[in-house]
This record gives sequence, C-alpha cells and structure tokens, in this order.
Amino acid sequence: MSASVTTNENITGKTVFIKMTLSAWDTYNARVNKLINTLSDEQLSAETAPGRNSGIYLLGHLIAVSDSLFPILGFGERLYPQLDKIFLESPDKSGLEIPSITELKEYWNKVNTKLTDHIIQMPEDEWFSRHNNVSEADFAKEPHRNKLNIIINRTNHTSYHLGQLIYLAKKED
Amino acid sequence: MSASVTTNENITGKTVFIKMTLSAWDTYNARVNKLINTLSDEQLSAETAPGRNSGIYLLGHLIAVSDSLFPILGFGERLYPQLDKIFLESPDKSGLEIPSITELKEYWNKVNTKLTDHIIQMPEDEWFSRHNNVSEADFAKEPHRNKLNIIINRTNHTSYHLGQLIYLAKKED
Repeated sequence: MSASVTTNENITGKTVFIKMTLSAWDTYNARVNKLINTLSDEQLSAETAPGRNSGIYLLGHLIAVSDSLFPILGFGERLYPQLDKIFLESPDKSGLEIPSITELKEYWNKVNTKLTDHIIQMPEDEWFSRHNNVSEADFAKEPHRNKLNIIINRTNHTSYHLGQLIYLAKKED
Repeated sequence: MSASVTTNENITGKTVFIKMTLSAWDTYNARVNKLINTLSDEQLSAETAPGRNSGIYLLGHLIAVSDSLFPILGFGERLYPQLDKIFLESPDKSGLEIPSITELKEYWNKVNTKLTDHIIQMPEDEWFSRHNNVSEADFAKEPHRNKLNIIINRTNHTSYHLGQLIYLAKKED
C-alpha cells in the first residue's frame, strides 16, 4: 500500500520472522524425513519404548496433524482425512486397519510437498491473519493466534515426537 | 484488505512475534516443570527407554542448555557452568559425580526464574539483534540469526526432550 521508511522496517521484520519460523519447521520435518528413510520397516514398526507408541503410529499421527493444516491455514481440502480416526482419535494398537509403511511414507511426502507449495506462495501479511480454528472475537483479543503461530506450535509438536522416534534408531543417536 | 496505520502495524507486528515465541517457550518449560514435579525421584532416575538417557541426565542437560542462554543473549554470567562437563560434554552414565535431584530441581527453577527476569526486561528491538554465538559478518548475511531465533530453537530442543521425559510417567500419558 504505502511506501515509507517505516514500511521497509516493517517488511524486514516480518520477512525475518517468517523465515525464522519456517526454517525451524523445515528443519524438524527434514529431521523426521531423514530418520524415517534411515529406519528399516522392522524398526519403524517397533514401539519407541516398551508399551509406548510405535514408530508407524507416530508417523501416521504426524501426517494427520500436518494434513490438518490445509483447512486451518486456508490451503484447501485435506489430502487424507481418513487418517484422523486411526491416528488422532484412536490410540496405537486400536485394531483399526492401518496403511502400510510404504503408503504412509508416500502420504508424508505428499502432505509436505503440497504444504510447502502453499507455504511459499503465502503473502507475508497473511501469516499474521487469523487461522481457521480461532473465532474473530478471540482473534481480536489475542492477535498472536495467527497462522504463523500454528507453524510454531506444530514445529514443537513435531520435535516432541521426533525425540521419541529417534529411539527406534540404533543407540549411537 | 483493510488500510491501517503502518507504524502501528509495525509495532504490533514485533510485539506479536515476540509474544508468539515467548508463549511457546513458556509453555514447554511449564510442561517440563509440571512433569518433573509429578515424577518420583525413582522415576526421574530411571532411563527414559532401555539403554537411553535417564530422566536426571535429561534434566541436567536442559538446565545446562538454558543456563548457556545467559551469555548467548547478553544476560551476563552463567549460574552453573560446572554442569557442561557432565550434561553437555559427557554422555549419561559417564561416571562423573552428578548433583542430586533436589539440587537439579533447584537449579532448574533458578535458571528459569532468572532467565524470565531478563526476558521480560528485554527491549523489543533487541530481540532482533545479533546473538553472541554468531559473528557480525554472518549476521549481516543472515539477519534471522537473532536473539529471538535462539528462543525458537531452544523451545524445539526442550520439546524434543520432553517427548522423551514423558516416558518416565505412567502409561496414560
């Protein structure tokens, strides 16, 4: 809209902050990616600790959570809504039929690729707008509950489960 | 969409970014805090998974990492530099003498209380300045490597280990 010194500073601040947030998001997704491509199917099927969630369940869980970003961030329809029942609403070993590891890895890649396509096209100001899980009234009171904040929270969620998934790898990790 | 005063937007923008970042930091520290105050000493002394880091080691590790923020963010001297050798430079079960659980909990609280004192006094613009682990030349090229970015990264580090510490709790978690 208007160009001024203030606007430039404003743009720089926003650009930098978006970069900080998206860099962390990319870093943790890349770490999950690297790990799941290093683990054998047998390792991924094992429990991360005795009686705890399996690798395959946590992978499905991360896919479902990332897939839910499409409607929350206004990116359109979800790719795999059928995963919610298995990986969000039910615990591990629920007896529900689950996709194969090959399918889950494919879903993980597709969700991330398509999310990235939307993320890189997002206009800067839109990151600071309301996400679709918060009402207009609440957002007016709490302007930090914006779309970029969702990415901050989901990055922490990914790193929380990455800390568990790493236990599937050999001991040197 | 709506036209608003650029300067106000700028101020609001910075305030909002800082709040987003610090809220996540506080949330994860509070979750660690709640967990370590719920666990018995026996639980905290156990391994988070067979052959993996113990709760007490991870707690010491988180304290050492948070304590290192004082010099990195320009908040002054560290409180417990002696923890580095045990919890950053050596693995768990190194044979080094470690503080008691009571002492570690006290250190954890002191580090967090003193960090918060500095954090709430930090002028807004200073969050976007260079932190002390990056050179001026590198910062000129990579302005996202600022003090607030350290908080984003450390929050992800805390949540990574919280995902492991939670395995010390009973199974419903």
